[in-house]
Parts: sequence; structure tokens; C-alpha cells
Amino acid sequence: MSKPTLPKGTRDFLPHQVAKREHIFGTIRDVFKRYGYQGIETPAMESLTTLTGKYGEEGDQLLFKVLNNGDYLKKADQEALEERDSTKLVTSIAKRGLRYDLTVPFARYVVMHQNDLQLPFKRYAIQPVWRADRPQKGRYQEFYQCDVDVVGSDSLMYEAELIQIFDEAYHALGIRVQIRVNNRKILEGIAEVFGILDQFTTFAVIIDKLDKIGPKKVAEQLCSLDLELQRSKELVATLSIDNLTALKELLNDSEVGNKGIQELEEMHVYLDSSTTHNEVLLDVTLARGLSYYTGCILEVKAIGIQMGSIGGGGRYDDLTGNFGLKGVSGVGISLGAERIYDVMEELDLFQGLELGKTEVIILSFDSESHKYGFKLGCDLRKHGISTDIYPEPAKFKKQMKYAGDGAYRYAIIIGEEERKTNNLTVKNLLKGEQEKMNVSSLIALLSK
Amino acid sequence: MSKPTLPKGTRDFLPHQVAKREHIFGTIRDVFKRYGYQGIETPAMESLTTLTGKYGEEGDQLLFKVLNNGDYLKKADQEALEERDSTKLVTSIAKRGLRYDLTVPFARYVVMHQNDLQLPFKRYAIQPVWRADRPQKGRYQEFYQCDVDVVGSDSLMYEAELIQIFDEAYHALGIRVQIRVNNRKILEGIAEVFGILDQFTTFAVIIDKLDKIGPKKVAEQLCSLDLELQRSKELVATLSIDNLTALKELLNDSEVGNKGIQELEEMHVYLDSSTTHNEVLLDVTLARGLSYYTGCILEVKAIGIQMGSIGGGGRYDDLTGNFGLKGVSGVGISLGAERIYDVMEELDLFQGLELGKTEVIILSFDSESHKYGFKLGCDLRKHGISTDIYPEPAKFKKQMKYAGDGAYRYAIIIGEEERKTNNLTVKNLLKGEQEKMNVSSLIALLSK
Repeated sequence: MSKPTLPKGTRDFLPHQVAKREHIFGTIRDVFKRYGYQGIETPAMESLTTLTGKYGEEGDQLLFKVLNNGDYLKKADQEALEERDSTKLVTSIAKRGLRYDLTVPFARYVVMHQNDLQLPFKRYAIQPVWRADRPQKGRYQEFYQCDVDVVGSDSLMYEAELIQIFDEAYHALGIRVQIRVNNRKILEGIAEVFGILDQFTTFAVIIDKLDKIGPKKVAEQLCSLDLELQRSKELVATLSIDNLTALKELLNDSEVGNKGIQELEEMHVYLDSSTTHNEVLLDVTLARGLSYYTGCILEVKAIGIQMGSIGGGGRYDDLTGNFGLKGVSGVGISLGAERIYDVMEELDLFQGLELGKTEVIILSFDSESHKYGFKLGCDLRKHGISTDIYPEPAKFKKQMKYAGDGAYRYAIIIGEEERKTNNLTVKNLLKGEQEKMNVSSLIALLSK
Repeated sequence: MSKPTLPKGTRDFLPHQVAKREHIFGTIRDVFKRYGYQGIETPAMESLTTLTGKYGEEGDQLLFKVLNNGDYLKKADQEALEERDSTKLVTSIAKRGLRYDLTVPFARYVVMHQNDLQLPFKRYAIQPVWRADRPQKGRYQEFYQCDVDVVGSDSLMYEAELIQIFDEAYHALGIRVQIRVNNRKILEGIAEVFGILDQFTTFAVIIDKLDKIGPKKVAEQLCSLDLELQRSKELVATLSIDNLTALKELLNDSEVGNKGIQELEEMHVYLDSSTTHNEVLLDVTLARGLSYYTGCILEVKAIGIQMGSIGGGGRYDDLTGNFGLKGVSGVGISLGAERIYDVMEELDLFQGLELGKTEVIILSFDSESHKYGFKLGCDLRKHGISTDIYPEPAKFKKQMKYAGDGAYRYAIIIGEEERKTNNLTVKNLLKGEQEKMNVSSLIALLSK
């Protein structure tokens, strides 16, 4: 019998980890609901035709494909089989795949259920996704995403609302963050002003590296776009603009740039009418996910820790076009649950939350006391108090070791005296203190 | 562009369905936690070596296998490829599979994490499982299971506890049930008394059909076990025994039968010290999952509706033996979330729960009022009131139609007068009544 193993890149979670993860998901879900988003669910398996081609060539490689059941070789592409062509063969032996993100299934969902949904439709989803990425620290083949999206409205109120959701959710988790905002149209405006709009994608890729390689190298690389070094340096200087006034001046002659500024201003009318816990700042270098974002771009970084972004999102003008429903705009954000977990662990933010503990464990010295304890346990549970009962009057040291493992808050110890006087020994396992009390005092104590 | 579809046997859930499902899962989870069970999670994908051979030959057929990534044909079994042998090829092109139930992954988990767990270990898991069953009404390829199990103790206290959990969970959901109890050893005792212990499995299969085909046909089929018809009829008569006294008399001479009775009695010592909401009754014909249950067997049926069992479970003396850890006993139950959903729909038990509703939607007549409304929305959310804001001062009829779709409890309507006097129009969408109040009265009303 060989030892059992897990597939690489997948994980089991121990109870204390599940409790922490539930705390994260629950906190985020509460914020989503408070903002009027409704939960939907889609299946883990989608038709491969739904998934393929939506994430670029690399994404297609990283999709997990599910083998057809039964005699799958019978209907297989015989030519591909003869040629041992794995890629060509796939579609004929696997018609399902595991979902890769929550956005594409959501777009499919909106199209399939358009008659059941009112637009604008606001939904949240907290579900696992699967990617055949090479596993490494902090990167897994199965991980959760927490998404909120709105489809069917152009209103910039939603951009403001999503920034508020970021702000509220990270605040509720105790994580201080910086929320960075940009707009694709502003980036396009800058490119236009410098006469390189025709090379926009390359431009965006280069400036996205500013954090990593610094302004000098970025200026050098920009020269590859037929910019003189001096002009390149001027461009890089504009990238540190962090206020709308200076930006307006720069983009004065760019139509698309002006549109971007107008969108940012309209969003700020909403945003400024409320206060946020965290700093929201303009970052014109922000270009993430540029291939599909068409308007607002958002990114969140945790303060006080070295870690990639822990949240991001933006607007895409044609969310459902891939599935045949044109002209439906969407805007959404995603919170990275796995990284949030790592940040909270590193900053010790789970400390003191006492997550997932059972209130009480009942221990007993003898068989009669054990039965008394079982009945007591039933009473406590009827009062909504989570209660465990050690299954037998085993050696007391053994029972205390079990009770002291961190899963319980109080141990109730029952011997002959306790059950005859109905005066119970109650030990606070966190403080190590012990006192005697009757059942109604105990219930009062634990119902707090 | 062809219309998007879902793989057969899988489902999307609309918001009102998700709200109902969350109600079921949340209610069940609360009960599990109240009884001191801790949540664990295992990944959707397991190594195929973990899953294969655990569910019988039919089960192996129904496992979803995940195709290896990259050039999977390169490492494929070339002989199997030449022979076009789908079954033989599988292990060389798919090393992962989707979990089929929560019990086998749990057994693997216990073995892999034995150094991190204290025995007895009580865990719950509420997760989806996947089976390539032919889809039909009420049967899906992806569905949720809600399981609690204890490993590492023989104490019959847990059998009583699990019956209480069934009782509490269905009661909390509003479903009246009958909880049927049996013990494999009692069935073996009956077989021994009638001299057919050597044909036990066939015997168990036949009597399991009693509900479906009736006593006459069961008696006839029992004759195939070399029983005379008269003796067969006597056996069938014993199957209606529903009290321990009569059973004791019958099994007086069977050692295994007496052991079974003793176990039932010990369980009842615990169970009788508390009251249950639902009837718990002995049913000596209960033989479900006999291939792995070794002691107690449990099954739950809903009252007042035609439906298969909505819960079941039992004890298996060697839960983790398959993975190399011998002699660890387990006892557990599973609640069938999908059938519970169907029962609750048919009996109209979701009625009046108002699940998943957002408290407030804010509507406005003009642009100024819309901004006022946005600010009001921020205030309400700060008070923990779930709030949505219609994104623009659109035609009022359109806004009211949106608000009236069943997702909201109150509409707050803002026009020039309201924003100038801070006296808001508040419409109760359930009752259709409308009144005026200021913000603090509104917050008081909604914070109730």
C-alpha cells in the first residue's frame, strides 16, 4: 500500500485554515451583499467551446480538460490519433473543461439567462477556479476567486461603488491598502499626445514595467517606439502625474484623453460624496489586463508588506459579445482570496479572532458522570452553544490533552460531586482559570 | 456564433435559487458546528489512484477523469493506443479525477494528516461531488453533499449524536422526517437464525426491496436461498419487528445478533436522555450501503411527500484501511442537499423566509436627487443595511419595474421635495404601502 498523495498544486485545508478562509469569504460576502449584489453559481465544468479562445493561447494550454466518459477513443479524431497529435485530438476526446475564472462563465450565464435577469444585473460569485499553472509558492492549480460585476449599465456610479467595496472589504479584514485607479482612455490620450497611439499595446506593456525596472530603463525601452530619448524622458515624467489638473493640461488636445478625464471626474463626483478608509489614487501607469479593459482600471496593493496586487478590475465595454449578445457593458472587480490569506497570516491579522472554536468540551471521570455530561451537552446545544463531549470517561490526562488542543474555549469537568450537587467545574482554557457554577449560570456565561 | 450551452447534467443557479441553497447549507452547517464538528476542505481533483477501486466497477465508470496537460500522448500507453482500448489507456493519459463523494477523500485526508489531528476527529464537509451518471429528473452530474463523520472512536455515543444531528437539521429546515435505525449485526443475526448466514449479501439485497415489491414477492425470492416457503414467510414476518424485546427473543441464540442488540441498547441509553423532534424507529429491513457499513445503519425519509431517502449513514469499522491506516473506526452521515431542496420546494417550506433580498433600493427623479440618493445609500450601508441604488434618474416607471422584481423589500423614492426637506418617501414593496420619514427614522426602521 503506497502512501496516498494529492495532485501537485492542490491542497487540503485543516480546520483552523478552513475557519480563517471562511472568515475571509464571509467578510467579503457580507460587503458584497450590503452593496446589493446577488449570489449566483455556475458549474465547475463548462463546455470546452465556452472556455477555449477566451484566455489567449497560453490560457488554452492551462485549461484542465475532462476526458469524455465511456469508449472515448471510438469517437476520437482518428487522424490526430495516428499522428499522435495531442492538441488536435483534444476536442474529440474531451468536451468539458474546468472553469478558469469567474468572468467568462458569468458572461455565458448572462447570455443564457437574459430572459430571467433584469439589467443592470449585479452579481457576486465566490467559487474555486482551476489552472494548470506550474505550482510554486503562493500559486496553486485550484484557488478561489471572489468577484463582483455589474452588467448592462454604463453608469460611472458603479466604478465608484466598486472602489467603495474594495475599501470596505479590506477594511473589514483589517488590511490597509492603496487603491489605484486609471482609465484606458487616459493611457491612449498620453500615447496620442506623444504620437505613438498606433503602437499602443507595446507602449502599455513597457510602462506597466515602471515599478519593476524603474524610469530610466522604461525611457530607454520607449525609444524603440521611434521616440527620441529626450521625448521618451518627457513621457516618463508625465507618468508620475497624480492629479487631474496636470493631466487635463497635458491631454488638452486629445479627444480620447479628454473622454478619460471626464469619466474619472464623473466617478469622483460619486466617490467624493463619501469618505473611504483607504487612499484612492490616480496612477496613470496602471495598465493591467489591458487586452479587455476599455475604461476604468483598478488595482489594490496591501500596505506594509511586499506582495503583488491583492485585488483588481475594470470596465469592459463588450462583456457578452463572445456569446452573441452585443453592446452589453460590464464593470467588475476580483478580490484575491489566497493572497489575502497570506497577507493576513504575515501581518498576524487573524490574531485574537478565535475563529472556528467550539465553545465547550465536556469531560467526565466515570460512566455515570459521562451520561450526565451527555445530557448536559444536549441542554447546552439547545441553547445554541456549540458543544463537544469526550466520548468516554477515559484517563483524565488524556481528556485534558484533547481539550487543550486549541479547538475549545471552555472545558466542563464532571465527577461524582459535580453531578450530585449540579455544581459544575468550568475551566476557561484560554486563561487557564477554573471556577464552579450551576447550569443556568453556565448558560448565561456562554450565551453572551 | 452558436448559442452557449452547459454540459448535460450540470446547472446554473439563479439568485433566488442560490439564496435558498445557502439557507439549506447554512442551516445544516450551524447544526454541525453546534455539535462540535469542524470544517475541512479537500480539493476537487484527487489522484485517480486515490479514487479508483473504491466505488465498485460501476463507480470507476462514473468517475470524471481529467486529461493530463501538455503533450499527453507522448507518455501514453502505446499498446493501448494501438488497440484503441479506452479503458486501458486512461491511467496513462489522466492521473487526476474529480471527487465522487466526500468519504474517500476524508479517509485519505485522515491518513495524510494523522500527525496534525487528534482522535477522535469530528469533521464536517459541505462540497460538490461529480458523477458521470445519466442525467435525469433530480439526478445531476455535479451536486452537493453535506457530511459529518467521526473517526477514531468506537463509542456508541456518536451514533446517538448523529441521530440528534439529523433530527435537529431537518427540524431547523422545517421538514418532518422519520429516522430509521438498524444494525448490520442484527441483520446478520436474523440470517444466522434462519441458517442463511453464508448467503448474507443476497439475503440483504432481497429484503432491501421490501418497500418496493412487498412481503409476498420477498418471501418468494427468499426461497432461492434454499428456504422452504413457510420458513420464508416466517422470516418476512420477523422483518416487521419494531421493538427490541421481540427482537431479543428472536435472536436469543445468535452471538452476532446479540451484539447488534447490545449496540442498539447502548445507543438508546444516550438517545433516550434527550428528546427528539422526530420519530426514531427500528427498521430491521434497512440494509443500505451494506457493502461497507459494519455496525449502525441510518436512513431518513421525509414525511408527507413521495421521495427517496433524504439522508443516510452508518458505521464502518475500517475507514482508513484502504490508505494504509488499519483499525480506525468511523461513523458518519450525509444529508442530501439536492433532495432537501426539492422537498422544501414541493412542501412550500421556503415560503415567508424572504431569502436573499436586498433591504433597500433607492430611486430618483432627477440628477441632483440621484446624487443625494447615492450619498444616502452610503449612509445606509454604513449602518449595515443592504442597499442598492438605481444607476441613473431614468423614467420612473422603468425604475419601479426594476424595484418591483422581488429582490428588494423597500424602495426609497427621492425627488426635489424629498431632498430639500430630508423627508423621504419610503415604499414597502411587500405590502405596497408608502409613507414619509426622515433618515434617522428610516435607519431605525431598517435596523430592526
